[in-house]
Amino acid sequence: MWNNTEVTKKLSIKFPIIQAGMAGGITTPELVAAVSNAGGLGMIGAGYMTPEELESNIQKVRDLTSKSFGVNLFVPEKPVVLQEEIESANQLLEPIRQMLGIEKKNDVPQIDTAVFDEQIQIVLKYEVPVCSFTFGIPQREIIDKLNNNGIITIGTATTVKEAIMNEAAGMNMIVVQGSEAGGHRGSFAESFDHSMIGTMALIPQVADQVSIPIIAAGGITDGRGVLASLVLGAKAVQMGTAFVTCKESGANELHKKAILNATEEQAVITRAFSGKPARGLNNAFIKKMKEHETTLPAYPIQNILTQDIRSEAVKQKNKEFMALWCGQNPRLSKNLHAAELIEMITNQVETIINKF
Amino acid sequence: MWNNTEVTKKLSIKFPIIQAGMAGGITTPELVAAVSNAGGLGMIGAGYMTPEELESNIQKVRDLTSKSFGVNLFVPEKPVVLQEEIESANQLLEPIRQMLGIEKKNDVPQIDTAVFDEQIQIVLKYEVPVCSFTFGIPQREIIDKLNNNGIITIGTATTVKEAIMNEAAGMNMIVVQGSEAGGHRGSFAESFDHSMIGTMALIPQVADQVSIPIIAAGGITDGRGVLASLVLGAKAVQMGTAFVTCKESGANELHKKAILNATEEQAVITRAFSGKPARGLNNAFIKKMKEHETTLPAYPIQNILTQDIRSEAVKQKNKEFMALWCGQNPRLSKNLHAAELIEMITNQVETIINKF
Repeated sequence: MWNNTEVTKKLSIKFPIIQAGMAGGITTPELVAAVSNAGGLGMIGAGYMTPEELESNIQKVRDLTSKSFGVNLFVPEKPVVLQEEIESANQLLEPIRQMLGIEKKNDVPQIDTAVFDEQIQIVLKYEVPVCSFTFGIPQREIIDKLNNNGIITIGTATTVKEAIMNEAAGMNMIVVQGSEAGGHRGSFAESFDHSMIGTMALIPQVADQVSIPIIAAGGITDGRGVLASLVLGAKAVQMGTAFVTCKESGANELHKKAILNATEEQAVITRAFSGKPARGLNNAFIKKMKEHETTLPAYPIQNILTQDIRSEAVKQKNKEFMALWCGQNPRLSKNLHAAELIEMITNQVETIINKF
Repeated sequence: MWNNTEVTKKLSIKFPIIQAGMAGGITTPELVAAVSNAGGLGMIGAGYMTPEELESNIQKVRDLTSKSFGVNLFVPEKPVVLQEEIESANQLLEPIRQMLGIEKKNDVPQIDTAVFDEQIQIVLKYEVPVCSFTFGIPQREIIDKLNNNGIITIGTATTVKEAIMNEAAGMNMIVVQGSEAGGHRGSFAESFDHSMIGTMALIPQVADQVSIPIIAAGGITDGRGVLASLVLGAKAVQMGTAFVTCKESGANELHKKAILNATEEQAVITRAFSGKPARGLNNAFIKKMKEHETTLPAYPIQNILTQDIRSEAVKQKNKEFMALWCGQNPRLSKNLHAAELIEMITNQVETIINKF
């Protein structure tokens, strides 16, 4: 049975389908609950949430579903901040701010890594069933504490080495994310370039090296991708872009429309928005920053610096300066209710299985 | 039945497994015949062969098998040759030549595109059952002539657009090659960067847009990859790296050993050897040329310029200056006879099917 795997059993879900915990307002409580109610696992993308926002999101999801759900957190990073790097990035951003009518910015970006600990406390307080992590592995004591409290922990890996590190750190499961993935990938142990492994190649190589269950991610949008992932050795899939265009998603309508009309080669890798390589649809902002890509400040500095530009672009309905995160199969995206998407996928899987 | 597809029927083969027509001496007549005798389709990698070499290879394969087989050809490219580009590339290569004890090189590389027409004549003369193409689409009259003579034509695509172009040009089938692939990919219509689509994302998107049968390539090494490809919508697979390490392959023993011991992130993209981006295991030559990558002459000029270095490296058993082409799943590679590899794969496929 394709929908009776180690992951569906441990997560108490009907189908091995997890909605990625995408940050930035995409994972509304309505989306998370709709996915869980339809038999998948909804996930709150809490990466950029304040503790209060996370608390409120958990409560709203609980109001909408009695089913299992999860929270995704970003393991904090504190890069060396060079004032001159910030100044030269601001010099590049200033003409764009002027064009959009944004006031001059001179603040020094502040990184508050304490938020992460507060987020963990909230996950514990509300006994959220599942907690997944991106951008690294938290300290062992955090993983142990979650596990000891019955919370299932899921790490993220983009290479075999990262997968082995996650297993060694005590994670219960692991999202193995191929290069097709949209938005930020979870690479942390190796250079980004060396972590660009396609899902088809990555899943079986990881499956041979770890014993915790693998959740495949990157380039999976429909029943074909779900069943192919299970065949490759995964016990479930995690889909991001496929849920971004769902009716319940909080993504900007221009963002949804852009994905629904895009072709696969338009989803490019850029550091321009956040300082960390991420895959999104090519637009004026990405093109303008292209030649400066290598010298932009590291994440999360650049992310903080471009915040006003991204917000203003949303207000002005100008998709050329928004971050249009998107994986490599926009041609397969649909504007359905999350429950319809999951039903479509499960029907496709059944149809394909009957053919073999 | 997984092994009764449009491709197995049209190619008269038992299993939907094609051995990629890799150039450079890897596809010995022994390898090609062993693959065909085991129920797959062996393919002569004739990209760099003289007409005489191709003729002799076809004859030898025919001596070793009565089964179907194919020939892969490179559609010729004639880039603008700038003398100063060649001189500056030679300046970079000269210290390496000195180190390897190679005499100074001052020849202007000559590109002979007439060879391609002679290769086609030989394919027609010997009624080779299958002819596949890489690096572009030949003129319509060539495709028509092959098809009219009962020779099955197979194009190569790395994006949906390239697949549609191949179908429109009259190709009977199409290899759809994801970014995981080793060696040179067949990109021709779009920039290489924009053609780096993972196999998991690329196959279903192409399947929805073309009606000729798809042969999946890129990151496929074992039964898991073969069945996953069929699930995604392909009617067969083409494997390269998996056959490079086979006992019958003509790859240098150091090349085979390097793949068998490699990890996935070591297979990097480089223009250093040929002027065209290709995936191979990182070594001293790739590292030395890295910062000059963008200014090296185009394919096939750079390929001609580095020929003496690659040959001498083979003679001196120095893998640091050889082209160690390799896809993104070296961890799955095995040193088996081709027939054993195909048997292993078919057994794996049967086992997985029985699980669902």
